[in-house]
Amino acid sequence: MNNITGHTGLTALLGSPVAHSISPLMHNESFRLLGLDYVYLCFDVNEETLPAAVAGLKTCGIRGFNLTMPNKNKIVELLDELSPEAQLIGAVNTVLNDNGKLIGYNTDGYGFMQSVRDAGHDITGKNITVMGVGGASMAICAQSALDGAASVHIFARRTSRYWNRTQKFAENLSAKTGCQVCLFDNDDHTALRDSIAQSYLLINATSVGMVPDIDDTIIKDTSLFHPELVVADVVYEPQETRLLREAKAAGCQTFNGMYMLLHQGAKAFQIWTGQEMPVSVIKEKYFSVK
Amino acid sequence: MNNITGHTGLTALLGSPVAHSISPLMHNESFRLLGLDYVYLCFDVNEETLPAAVAGLKTCGIRGFNLTMPNKNKIVELLDELSPEAQLIGAVNTVLNDNGKLIGYNTDGYGFMQSVRDAGHDITGKNITVMGVGGASMAICAQSALDGAASVHIFARRTSRYWNRTQKFAENLSAKTGCQVCLFDNDDHTALRDSIAQSYLLINATSVGMVPDIDDTIIKDTSLFHPELVVADVVYEPQETRLLREAKAAGCQTFNGMYMLLHQGAKAFQIWTGQEMPVSVIKEKYFSVK
Repeated sequence: MNNITGHTGLTALLGSPVAHSISPLMHNESFRLLGLDYVYLCFDVNEETLPAAVAGLKTCGIRGFNLTMPNKNKIVELLDELSPEAQLIGAVNTVLNDNGKLIGYNTDGYGFMQSVRDAGHDITGKNITVMGVGGASMAICAQSALDGAASVHIFARRTSRYWNRTQKFAENLSAKTGCQVCLFDNDDHTALRDSIAQSYLLINATSVGMVPDIDDTIIKDTSLFHPELVVADVVYEPQETRLLREAKAAGCQTFNGMYMLLHQGAKAFQIWTGQEMPVSVIKEKYFSVK
Repeated sequence: MNNITGHTGLTALLGSPVAHSISPLMHNESFRLLGLDYVYLCFDVNEETLPAAVAGLKTCGIRGFNLTMPNKNKIVELLDELSPEAQLIGAVNTVLNDNGKLIGYNTDGYGFMQSVRDAGHDITGKNITVMGVGGASMAICAQSALDGAASVHIFARRTSRYWNRTQKFAENLSAKTGCQVCLFDNDDHTALRDSIAQSYLLINATSVGMVPDIDDTIIKDTSLFHPELVVADVVYEPQETRLLREAKAAGCQTFNGMYMLLHQGAKAFQIWTGQEMPVSVIKEKYFSVK
């Protein structure tokens, strides 16, 4: 690390739990490589404590911060301005403190689509099935629609507190992009089978299958997989979730959320510092598949 | 520096201005030398913004922080508990976040008396003259009284907003320690002349003479100096203030506030980490007289 002085600026990740995150490694190493005088720390903050944390960090002159679960929605009401994609998504993972004005961005969708390109895929004109209605899901759906997918089918629990919000989100996204965005019930097995059968890409955008619950999967019926399907999981701990393992066994190409994390971070880094993260070095150092 | 991860803890200095401080250097280097997983940053915070900053940093799980001007008095009302010396002084320069309970300490007095011992002096049974009634002054007066000085004469502007508070402080300190602690008007030249004539140690505990106002001095009449007098300045930028330069010219032994800063920091470090700062290494590295 560079020497920390009284001039060293702060950036951070606010979430709960948060101490396990790889984000401080990639940002601090990038600051060091480029000679930028910042540090990136993790703070365990939840929706209840977020307002006080944000007010205090702003007062302390923080340059910017990331949000992870459970804070990506709650943060929106605490900001002064939202970028266009953050407005569309209604969730924020990156905040810039522009001299006391807090501006919210969402770099998750960009990060995911960059990881899709990294894996050699092009979703233009394709159908996509997305599991989940959290912040990551909405970011991915919005970016998929903006990037030219023909349709995006979102599946969630009918009892989810986000159901109605997501219904409106889907209608708004369809109207604004021309992509056919629809919301379906997880329990509608026929709809799920039909959607996956027609899809180029299936994405788990929930935390199902993440450690410690590694025996869980969002797709219980493995007969839904077909060899033409690409299966992506936003989860990256474990590196291969049960979903990806079973999809691979069924002949699917698969990739996890590691490069989504890398690229959302690179975009946040660029927003805070105006400089490009040295992505290839960071990828090799922290994101190489073991 | 050690690698910063999601587990790395935060400590900080809250003041305004603050970016010039040497504290981040000594604390971060001590963390590195002892392999402790913390960083120490500076945040520009004043009395108006202190409540929000403290609430936010506590929410973020900060381990502890230092206060410098102008925050050493205002912080008192934001804490859950005060150490005995902080209660006596009524000012706090070090806070420990003990699992959400904020405990205030004052290590300035300890730091100053350690620097007096470093310079080879013993104030037991001696008379002391202290200029100023800010946080540093009260810390020094209290520790001098506790350490066995015969008398402490405090000089301040009669118009100071702290005059009445200091009057009560002097009475309370006299009653509690048996040391004769009295408050005098700066403009009472006879009292100042008499006090310095009887004193072993004269201390400037104001910021008079600090950069950029290096041509200023708290003692305009150099005929008050006498060769038996030791003159100390809490200011350490410049390393030799006009006060110390003129006192030295008059035959006095002198020392500045650098080692006070070192030792108050070492005490704070011990409060936060339970470990001893490697003082001799830090002294050599950051506090050697140029």
